[in-house]
This record gives sequence, C-alpha cells and structure tokens, in this order.
Amino acid sequence: MDDLITLDYGSGGKKTSALISEMVLPLLGNDLLDPLPDGALLPGAEALAFSTDSFVVSPLFFPGGDIGKLAVCGTVNDLAVSGSDPKYLSLALIIEEGLPAKTLERVLCSVRDAAAKAGVLVVTGDTKVVERGRGDGLYINTSGIGILRQRGLTPDAIRPGDRVILSGTAGDHGAAVMLARSDSLAEGTLKSDCAPLHALCAALRPLGTAVRVLRDPTRGGVATTLCEFAEGRPFAIELEEDAIPVDPAVASACELLGLDPLYCANEGKLLAVIAPERADEALKRLRALPEGQNAAIIGTVTERNPGRVLLETAIGGTRLITKLSGAQLPRIC
Amino acid sequence: MDDLITLDYGSGGKKTSALISEMVLPLLGNDLLDPLPDGALLPGAEALAFSTDSFVVSPLFFPGGDIGKLAVCGTVNDLAVSGSDPKYLSLALIIEEGLPAKTLERVLCSVRDAAAKAGVLVVTGDTKVVERGRGDGLYINTSGIGILRQRGLTPDAIRPGDRVILSGTAGDHGAAVMLARSDSLAEGTLKSDCAPLHALCAALRPLGTAVRVLRDPTRGGVATTLCEFAEGRPFAIELEEDAIPVDPAVASACELLGLDPLYCANEGKLLAVIAPERADEALKRLRALPEGQNAAIIGTVTERNPGRVLLETAIGGTRLITKLSGAQLPRIC
Repeated sequence: MDDLITLDYGSGGKKTSALISEMVLPLLGNDLLDPLPDGALLPGAEALAFSTDSFVVSPLFFPGGDIGKLAVCGTVNDLAVSGSDPKYLSLALIIEEGLPAKTLERVLCSVRDAAAKAGVLVVTGDTKVVERGRGDGLYINTSGIGILRQRGLTPDAIRPGDRVILSGTAGDHGAAVMLARSDSLAEGTLKSDCAPLHALCAALRPLGTAVRVLRDPTRGGVATTLCEFAEGRPFAIELEEDAIPVDPAVASACELLGLDPLYCANEGKLLAVIAPERADEALKRLRALPEGQNAAIIGTVTERNPGRVLLETAIGGTRLITKLSGAQLPRIC
Repeated sequence: MDDLITLDYGSGGKKTSALISEMVLPLLGNDLLDPLPDGALLPGAEALAFSTDSFVVSPLFFPGGDIGKLAVCGTVNDLAVSGSDPKYLSLALIIEEGLPAKTLERVLCSVRDAAAKAGVLVVTGDTKVVERGRGDGLYINTSGIGILRQRGLTPDAIRPGDRVILSGTAGDHGAAVMLARSDSLAEGTLKSDCAPLHALCAALRPLGTAVRVLRDPTRGGVATTLCEFAEGRPFAIELEEDAIPVDPAVASACELLGLDPLYCANEGKLLAVIAPERADEALKRLRALPEGQNAAIIGTVTERNPGRVLLETAIGGTRLITKLSGAQLPRIC
C-alpha cells in the first residue's frame, strides 16, 4: 500500500486487489466476504445473493447509456453471475449541489427502464447532497438482492480442458465512455454495451455443474477477470486473439486512444467457463438470445503454465496477460 | 421542485420529501417502495428488511465517532427500527484521490468495531476512487439485510392516547458534528450519540402490537420524524418541552450555534410510539439497557388538531412544530 490513495486504487486492477487483500480483508474478513464473489451468498431459509456497487462514471451520459442504466445493470449483473435471479435493488444518490433537476429526472427514467427490463424492483433508497466541488454531478450506489438458483460457481471449479466463452464483443463500454470524454472525436457508431445479463445467465443454468464460473468483466476488462480466475490456481488460460470478438469501431477507437480492448470495461458481456463436453451447447444457448448473438469460444483452460493467462496473437506469438496495472480508464463505471 | 438541486434537498426535511414524492415515487414507485419505510420489507421464504444509506459526513472524524462507525450504525438502525435483526452489510467506498491510507484504515477499524458491536457481518463491498476535487476524502454507502421479527410497525398503527418515548437525549450527533466543524469552539464533553439501536428495539419486541412504530430520528431530528408520523393522519402529537431530555452541553452548543436540539440529528436514539397501557413497561425495558437509561415519555398522541405536532413549551405556551425547512445542518451524516 502507498501512503496516499491514488486513482489506481479504483481501477479494478492490481492496486484495487492490494487494497482489498492488505487492508480490507485483514480488518473485515469473514467466511462470506473472503471469497470476494461479485455477490455474497447468504445462508437462510432461502439462500440469497447480495451485492453492492457505486457508480462514478464520467460523463453521466454516454452513447448507449447513462449512469442510471449502468447503476441498475451493474448490480443486476453481479447478482446474475453469482447464480441468482436479481429481485430487489436499493438506490442511493449522492448529488452535487447545482445538478439540474431535469438531469436527475432523466437518470431516474433510465433507472426505471433498466429495472423494468431486468425484472427488478427498486425497494429502498437514500438521497444526499454535497456542496459544489465535493462531487461531480451525481454518484449512485445500488445494492441488490437475488434469489440463489445455482450454487458452486467459482473459479475453483475450473478444470483443464474447460472452454472460455465471451458472450459478445470486448471493450465496448470502456471505449464508448473514453470516446465520449474526447469532445474532438466523432462518436460514430460506438456504443456502450450496458445491458442486463440475467437472461444469458439463466440460459446456461440447465447445464448444471458444467458451468464452472460466470463473471461480468467490468473494470479491468476480460484480461483482468481471467487473471483473477487463474491467479494462484493449478491451471492456465490460453486465449486466441483471433477468436475474441471486437467491434471494428472499438478496435479503431482503442488504437486511437492507446487502449487495449481486452482491458476495457464491459457492462453487458458475460464471461463463462464451461466444461468441454457442453461448450457447444452453451454457445448455442447464448447465441439464441439477442444479447448473446456474437458469443464465441475465446480460449481453453490448460495445465501448462499454471496461474498464467496467455494470448496467442494473430501473428503467431504468445503474450503474457497480466492484471490491469494502474488506472488505464478512471471512472469508467 | 426547483430547477437546480440545492443542499436543502439533502436535509431530510421538506425539500427531500418533495424530491421523493414529486420525482422518485412517480418514476420508481411500487408497493414495497411507496411506504418509504427505513427498511423495505421483502416477501419470501423468510421475510427480510433491506435498507441503504450513503454517508457524506464532514468532518470524517468527530467526537464520539467517525464516518465508519456512522455508516454501520446508520444502516443497522434503519433495519432495527423496521422490526428486524440486522444481519448483513455491504460496504461501498468512494474515495477522493489523495486520502491518506492511514485515514482509510482508521475508518475501516471503526467499521469493524461497530459491526462487531451490532452483530452484523460485512459480506460484500466496492471501492471507487475519484479525482481530487470530485469528492471530499471519503463517502461510504452501506446497505443492509435484516431478518424480520416484528411486523406492522408503521405510523398508521398509531392511535390517540399512545405515548411517545425517546430513548435518551435529543440532538447530540448534530450538535457534536457542528461543533467539530468550528475550530474556534471548545469541544468540551459534547459527543455524538452514534450507536447501534438493535438491542433497544429487541427489548420492546415482547410488547407486540403495543409497539406502534419505531424510528431513529436522524436528519431533521426528533421534530421532523414526528411530523412525518402525524402528516396526513387523523391524530396530533403533543410534546412537553420539559419532558424532552437534552444534554446541557448540547443545549449550550445549540444556543451558541443557533440550532434547535429537536431538529438536530441523532444517530443512537430511538423514537417509539407505544400503547398507553404498556408505556411504563416500555420505558422500564429501555432504561434497563445502558443506551436507554435516559429514556423518557416526551409526548402523547391526541385527537385534537389532526396532522399536527405541537410543543407545550416550558413557559406554558404552545408551538407548532413543522418539518425541517432548508438545510439547517448539511452533511451531518
């Protein structure tokens, strides 16, 4: 840990991991928190998933969505990849003094629409207002509760031979938000992929234990999420660059901005690790839904190089993939 | 609604009510959200309470507590007054770049201690970092889940003749935070009352339906909470000024700062409306706990002047009590 918290600590990459493992877990750790799942699994008469996320995206509105849609989808997706049906959301607003009421209303309309689409109810909330210069328009926290439907989804369930599936193109959200920040760049067709993943997750449920783990690769992107899977575990993940779907507009924007789509946040993509004998069926099930029509098998779990994520590049080389280091994209979600 | 959101909208008073009734409920309202309880009551195999609160208190540390302790107690108390046993918390941090890591650690130690005291587990979390000048050190959101133990706690259950009990002195938290902001004023013995209320709430549970409603009078204080009880309902609440416990240090500080203890936030006080025949027993049960030793009956529910809250002053007059108007105390929690 450094003496001062820098933007890197919010990147979702190495520094965020350090903060959590070196400070948060030693102080607050317990059996439910320690696995650091996207949603904590709670015991009880009915097993539940519980998740929280704050949203500080800048700008508040971007092609394909806004902070309201993002705040609903983000928590819905954390619950969905935990193996639950998202049910209830809380909505807590931290408003900077001077925010136009119309802006807030527009955001709340997005919350309403996204909640309806994801089949969740906003059941409790909170409003705080801070002085000018102590916020940035609007920050939103959503927490959510889902009913657990599928247990045992964890990177520990991954076995050599398993296939890695991505439900669509990589990096759309990160690229769209970065582009929205550069006034000088044309926005073109580039849009955030911000969308709820509950239907994709539910579509895989009948595959049972062949579904090893599900995750929505947000901050840090596909690369960082896969590194979290492999880190300290007895397998490697080998990706094929050619197999990873990337929207051409995202590819050009990333080149322009000096970004790598593999490290760019997604807000409507599912990463699934599936047993080899059911991988084709999983792909078919995902592709049957509009939000999964570009799903692809992007890699395989192997025994060589345990703990590593490796990318076979299009030109035939092999690149070691590491967690996002530093804040490539601050305030992307 | 005004065109721009001002600090008043975060006061917990009239403007906050307007924002919720004129914008949030028309857009997001549903059967679970509409009653606006401190914690939403969720149906299911096991009935649950669900609550959220963001904390933006300034300064982060104040006599008697800090933002970490406050963030745990605030949500624990919302769950407790909803009639539930608080069980699980989420913890979401929005850190301003440049916050000393030691400060964060100190706050997390308070979170740990307060969670242990309240018997809750932090099971999920999130960390975001915003640039310098886009936050104020640290904002925290906690959301919480409790197991529902007592149903039917609502202002609608209040009947004429009921007694209003306050579990201790009024206004300690608000006065302590305001004083902590004035460098020039001696802090003296004044401390925030920040504390978990779960034990006080559980102590009243055996009284069953004689317990009409429980509430923790935070932003807007005892006055605003009682106005929310009476507003639009067929009864009035008559308070006796002499009967309301106020710490002498709080009384002097309020005089100095031009505040009214009845409108100052409490963060460890319970307001309970109890059927007349069980009021003495309720008082005894609260006083048996250290945090309730100064509990007092401060008023009575009457049929005269429905919808109103009236204060019989020490000098024999009657004052109409209204909801907090404007932001008497911004960023008190």
